[in-house]
Amino acid sequence: MKLVHSLAELREEIASHKKSQKSIGFVPTMGALHEGHASLMREARENNDFVVLSIFVNPTQFGVNEDFSKYPRTLPEDCKIAEASGVDLVFAPSAEEMYPLGFQTYIEVGKVAEPLCGKFRPGHFRGVTTVVNRLFNLIEPTRAYFGQKDIQQCLVLLRMVKDFGSPVELVICPTIREKDGLAMSSRNRYLSATERKKSLVIYRALQAVELLHQQGETEVAELSLAAEQELARVPEFELQYLEILSYPDLEKIETVKDQAVIAIAGFLGKTRLIDNSIL
Amino acid sequence: MKLVHSLAELREEIASHKKSQKSIGFVPTMGALHEGHASLMREARENNDFVVLSIFVNPTQFGVNEDFSKYPRTLPEDCKIAEASGVDLVFAPSAEEMYPLGFQTYIEVGKVAEPLCGKFRPGHFRGVTTVVNRLFNLIEPTRAYFGQKDIQQCLVLLRMVKDFGSPVELVICPTIREKDGLAMSSRNRYLSATERKKSLVIYRALQAVELLHQQGETEVAELSLAAEQELARVPEFELQYLEILSYPDLEKIETVKDQAVIAIAGFLGKTRLIDNSIL
Repeated sequence: MKLVHSLAELREEIASHKKSQKSIGFVPTMGALHEGHASLMREARENNDFVVLSIFVNPTQFGVNEDFSKYPRTLPEDCKIAEASGVDLVFAPSAEEMYPLGFQTYIEVGKVAEPLCGKFRPGHFRGVTTVVNRLFNLIEPTRAYFGQKDIQQCLVLLRMVKDFGSPVELVICPTIREKDGLAMSSRNRYLSATERKKSLVIYRALQAVELLHQQGETEVAELSLAAEQELARVPEFELQYLEILSYPDLEKIETVKDQAVIAIAGFLGKTRLIDNSIL
Repeated sequence: MKLVHSLAELREEIASHKKSQKSIGFVPTMGALHEGHASLMREARENNDFVVLSIFVNPTQFGVNEDFSKYPRTLPEDCKIAEASGVDLVFAPSAEEMYPLGFQTYIEVGKVAEPLCGKFRPGHFRGVTTVVNRLFNLIEPTRAYFGQKDIQQCLVLLRMVKDFGSPVELVICPTIREKDGLAMSSRNRYLSATERKKSLVIYRALQAVELLHQQGETEVAELSLAAEQELARVPEFELQYLEILSYPDLEKIETVKDQAVIAIAGFLGKTRLIDNSIL
């Protein structure tokens, strides 16, 4: 496995693999890798000739009061996980490489970026699409892998790729959970032991909705109520949103007809957690 | 030469040329081709294995009161010019192919898109970058060719390609002029015989500035005055802007030090004309 930091080194590596017409699997991350990321890398390994992982804590997708500066940076450990997961090339650029002097061209995302996290993290998806599109152009992957845990990110990027006509196939992989059900996230390490226990309430709320939906309930009001009742059992969980929206357009619905997504976000202490389930 | 209208046909053509690792030269146009476009096609022919021309009157780059509906559409004549200029493939999509159902992802351009045409045609460069980026993704050209006549478009796209890390080389080709100096433009055909004669005032104003600059004048106020005096000789020319800005950032300057651009836009009757010169 090779680790490169500069665009020049990256371009050289990519050019040689493009020449041999090998397929490239790409996993973009912000590092602080966990088993969720590893599952993406293994999926990429299985279906491509060459696997690239990027590690870049992207400043433009953080709000001013968010955790950009304290976001965990664990490059040596990340490289070990990457190597064990079959990655060929790690690209860990500096901000100067990703945002060259005079940078001023952003991506303006549409309706699918408006609800859920888009409402509470203004500019977040603009930052995500702008950096991911740049990585796509630099790496020219055949396939790129994202986790369902960040479902709105997946849907915004799917829309971008379709609208831009980008020659890359997005692969959405299942959310990986701890044994007790908590969705894996780099931010879980912020949780105290008490918060860690209380964090399970999110998964329980999702399960309550799934169960009710399996039993035939399709009214969004009823399904939401089941989640709210579950969440109310842990008053320390400060809910940011609980929404059941159409999938993949994330539009308001009153009844679950075709596919829908239930998405939850909130805080335990200072740690923001999100999770979702597709109905 | 082949003419295709659908994305499916385009993708098939591009895929086969990508496989053989041939270089692709690309000339994006709105059709109504003239000798200026032909010079771009010949340049692309000379330096690439395969030449693609796109013809698409892009709705998103026209303002509500602009000439989208009456913009000349001359596909059969365009194809003759393309064939004579060495084009291999013409891509003439419908709006539905270029803006698929639910389209919502645009490109947000920065400071370089603010002055000049950006000021008088709000949304114009957003439309240009959005469609050109999509064409780049669909065609995956090695090189793309643009005319200096649309200098701000060139500079906005150069910035976009740099910021996006797009794997395409932009080639800016010289403005092609009629024998008497008028910059070639698809919109010149709107001019009456009288307007056509009066239109030369723009080129004369540019030449006056060039001459003064060659004589050693570097003060923007003085250089602008020379252009204004020339333009004043044709009161029918309704000036929209006359600006001397830094090149390539298009920032305000008081003195021409390194490179600068003088750009002029205005109306003769209902026809909007633009032209520029790099000092």
